[in-house]
Amino acid sequence: MSIAATVAAIRARRTTASAVVEAALADIAARDGALNCFTAVTADRARAEAAAVDAAIAAGRDPGPLAGVPLAVKNLFDLEGLRTLAGSKIRRDAPAAAQDAFAVQLLRAAGAVVVGATNMDEFAFGFSTENSHEGPTRNPHDPARIAGGSSGGSAAAVAAGLVPIAIGSDTNGSIRVPAGLCGIWGLKPTYGRLSRRGAHLFAGSFDHVGPFARSLDDLALVYEAMQGEDPADPAQVPREFEPVSGLAGLGGLRIGIAAGYFERGGQPEALAPVALAAQALGATTRIAPDLVAEGRAAALLVTLAEGANLHLPNLRLRADDFDPLTRDRFLAGALLPAHWITQAQRVRAAWARAASRIFEACDVLVAPLLPYVAPPIGTAMIEVDGATVPARPHLGVYTQPFSAIGLPAMAVPLADPARAGASLPVGVQLVAAPWREDLLFRAAAALVEAGLAGCPPVAAQHVKENA
Amino acid sequence: MSIAATVAAIRARRTTASAVVEAALADIAARDGALNCFTAVTADRARAEAAAVDAAIAAGRDPGPLAGVPLAVKNLFDLEGLRTLAGSKIRRDAPAAAQDAFAVQLLRAAGAVVVGATNMDEFAFGFSTENSHEGPTRNPHDPARIAGGSSGGSAAAVAAGLVPIAIGSDTNGSIRVPAGLCGIWGLKPTYGRLSRRGAHLFAGSFDHVGPFARSLDDLALVYEAMQGEDPADPAQVPREFEPVSGLAGLGGLRIGIAAGYFERGGQPEALAPVALAAQALGATTRIAPDLVAEGRAAALLVTLAEGANLHLPNLRLRADDFDPLTRDRFLAGALLPAHWITQAQRVRAAWARAASRIFEACDVLVAPLLPYVAPPIGTAMIEVDGATVPARPHLGVYTQPFSAIGLPAMAVPLADPARAGASLPVGVQLVAAPWREDLLFRAAAALVEAGLAGCPPVAAQHVKENA
Repeated sequence: MSIAATVAAIRARRTTASAVVEAALADIAARDGALNCFTAVTADRARAEAAAVDAAIAAGRDPGPLAGVPLAVKNLFDLEGLRTLAGSKIRRDAPAAAQDAFAVQLLRAAGAVVVGATNMDEFAFGFSTENSHEGPTRNPHDPARIAGGSSGGSAAAVAAGLVPIAIGSDTNGSIRVPAGLCGIWGLKPTYGRLSRRGAHLFAGSFDHVGPFARSLDDLALVYEAMQGEDPADPAQVPREFEPVSGLAGLGGLRIGIAAGYFERGGQPEALAPVALAAQALGATTRIAPDLVAEGRAAALLVTLAEGANLHLPNLRLRADDFDPLTRDRFLAGALLPAHWITQAQRVRAAWARAASRIFEACDVLVAPLLPYVAPPIGTAMIEVDGATVPARPHLGVYTQPFSAIGLPAMAVPLADPARAGASLPVGVQLVAAPWREDLLFRAAAALVEAGLAGCPPVAAQHVKENA
Repeated sequence: MSIAATVAAIRARRTTASAVVEAALADIAARDGALNCFTAVTADRARAEAAAVDAAIAAGRDPGPLAGVPLAVKNLFDLEGLRTLAGSKIRRDAPAAAQDAFAVQLLRAAGAVVVGATNMDEFAFGFSTENSHEGPTRNPHDPARIAGGSSGGSAAAVAAGLVPIAIGSDTNGSIRVPAGLCGIWGLKPTYGRLSRRGAHLFAGSFDHVGPFARSLDDLALVYEAMQGEDPADPAQVPREFEPVSGLAGLGGLRIGIAAGYFERGGQPEALAPVALAAQALGATTRIAPDLVAEGRAAALLVTLAEGANLHLPNLRLRADDFDPLTRDRFLAGALLPAHWITQAQRVRAAWARAASRIFEACDVLVAPLLPYVAPPIGTAMIEVDGATVPARPHLGVYTQPFSAIGLPAMAVPLADPARAGASLPVGVQLVAAPWREDLLFRAAAALVEAGLAGCPPVAAQHVKENA
């Protein structure tokens, strides 16, 4: 059922927000034990918020475009009264948040109901959500496999149908990677589009917040509800915003096919969707940008430096309390020399200039999303393209270049009927020039129209209750 | 004689560009030995360029707004056929530049004639032009004293009357400091206003190029001639440009008086002009911005890191060939940890936000320009405000905060009749919001109108020929 249908049913009093939210809470209670999407379920506040939606409707007030829709929130967004752990052990003694993050405030104002906080890689530094403190989040399509990360709990909760929508953050791919591995929609907007206030940062010059959903229409509704100018977020760039719901028709859009760097480093199964999507969109222009590998390397270095800077006091005093999967990388970041970062920033700027030329030749770039389908939990190394690479960091090989320079990018799940039930989800990545999220929605709508994009169903044997 | 008068005389054939340039070359030959402004005199190209101007006039073509005006160029701008030493010994074996820097091309296109390259601190890292390889440039108002830096040769050449105009670069104050110590006009435009192509960078995220002149009208003419879009300079931000010549009338301009940080750290003689200028402009609003000291500290760290990154190969291989006055600072920059720079960039951004609030309360800020008048050459430490501080770096105490965040700022020489001949030059600094150089010219015109601003004459005993 789409968000729009749910909201319509609640507004028409064919059901109530309370009933919808109780069903979600019951589903989470029954099935999340096997998946480990949630680190906290906020049943009390969810019931209160749902009751408030129902009361608004009873009083004839507008309950908002997301009235009564259950929402899962990555646990790096503040939720009033809850500790924002950001996947860490270190923050278990932090005080509870005094108020909701700005993005959560906007979604609540639109009527969404917060049902819980979700699992993630520690401090958002990872692509797998194999959190050593909380345990791994499991992929709804195969619980032996990772859900991806760092926003893995949010993505898996949406893929499993525990909630229709969720929010996460994306520094190097942390929305798009788990969306891709779990077979759902995810959007990383342009850097500066959405306020990050109340979201714990990882690498400030790369951090974005954004939504997950199970349909393009739902994604548009959540994304629209997340718009709002926040004078308290200095990184936000105030811009006019036009709604993206219902955008359709490729019109004269020029679609480019990412070539060069983007044809290497992935397994054929994961790269194949690019050609399918390009064909469906009538794309023929192949674009091989310069400096992609260099830009990705620069992104890693700056991420390390910014992340280490943020966590330096704890790295000095309690390094042992970090997740073993993040600790050494943060320490490495703390030891980098400044001239490396200066060089990395110079390369990053050069990559941004090279990337700007992509959009002289096309309006939307179709790129691969992931180098392989979800690996089994615990996979350290993997074979791609004749080489053995570290399985976790390599998941960001196609997403990281674009977040490094703030371009808007969308994870599109592939609904190829030929693959249905056959295997794990695959998808493609759509990328546009800054502030042109609207073009992503238009191209994605064309893929839906062509029957190519959409969430693959979770096989029945995995939709099981807790043991 | 103003540029406009010189150009008018040449155009009207009351004199020729060749005669003007020959006079400048003769003056340089006679007097620069005592001042050491020039590291190279480009007599051949100057004569050829002057002849071309005269030929254009003879042929009835427009020779440009700077027709025949002698120009001195800081030796970090490429001049075709000349080695760009940037004040170093290391670059003495560099190849000669293949073409002029973009700024020089624009000025030549406007008719200016390049008479030579000027002395500077090595790689622009300094405020004193006490260059160990080339010897110090001497202040025309007292040859025992520094001219300031790093564009000291350009500033002293203009102050001494060897040339009417010159160009330099300003990373932390390298135009404004020598302009102030030499008693001339200097402008650091908004970061991104002018192309830096062909100018050897020092700290890329801070580097600006800009002009020197002996009158506000001249400054406006040179600055206008430096405008030009350069697709090859990625740091330039293309903007509409309105001429600034002849701007006058304060109208409703709100003038603020820099307080707090800007009232400390300087000697009374150097700070006094702020109150004089504020009174002349009818300013009453005192503005004490937050985070100035922190912003300056951040600027130093990022400068060190960017500078060290640029020179790292030479620092590794031939550190002994650096000027002793810059070597240790560059080496310190190479050893900084990345997390310091990340923190410094965060502080710099916070200072930029704090500074943006200045311009909610005023349109032009009157700030001190320098903490003291020109110290004797060789001065290492100096007393200010009850403390002993390092004399050279402290010269940037009031300029550095503004260049760190790219605000346009002008060095205005004080022509207070009460001080004439009494002592060394002093001045004030005018600062505006990004892209509002026009407001600086309007406020400066009001100070000229009030009889307060203008270049103090160089005492006759110092206008001497070489011994």
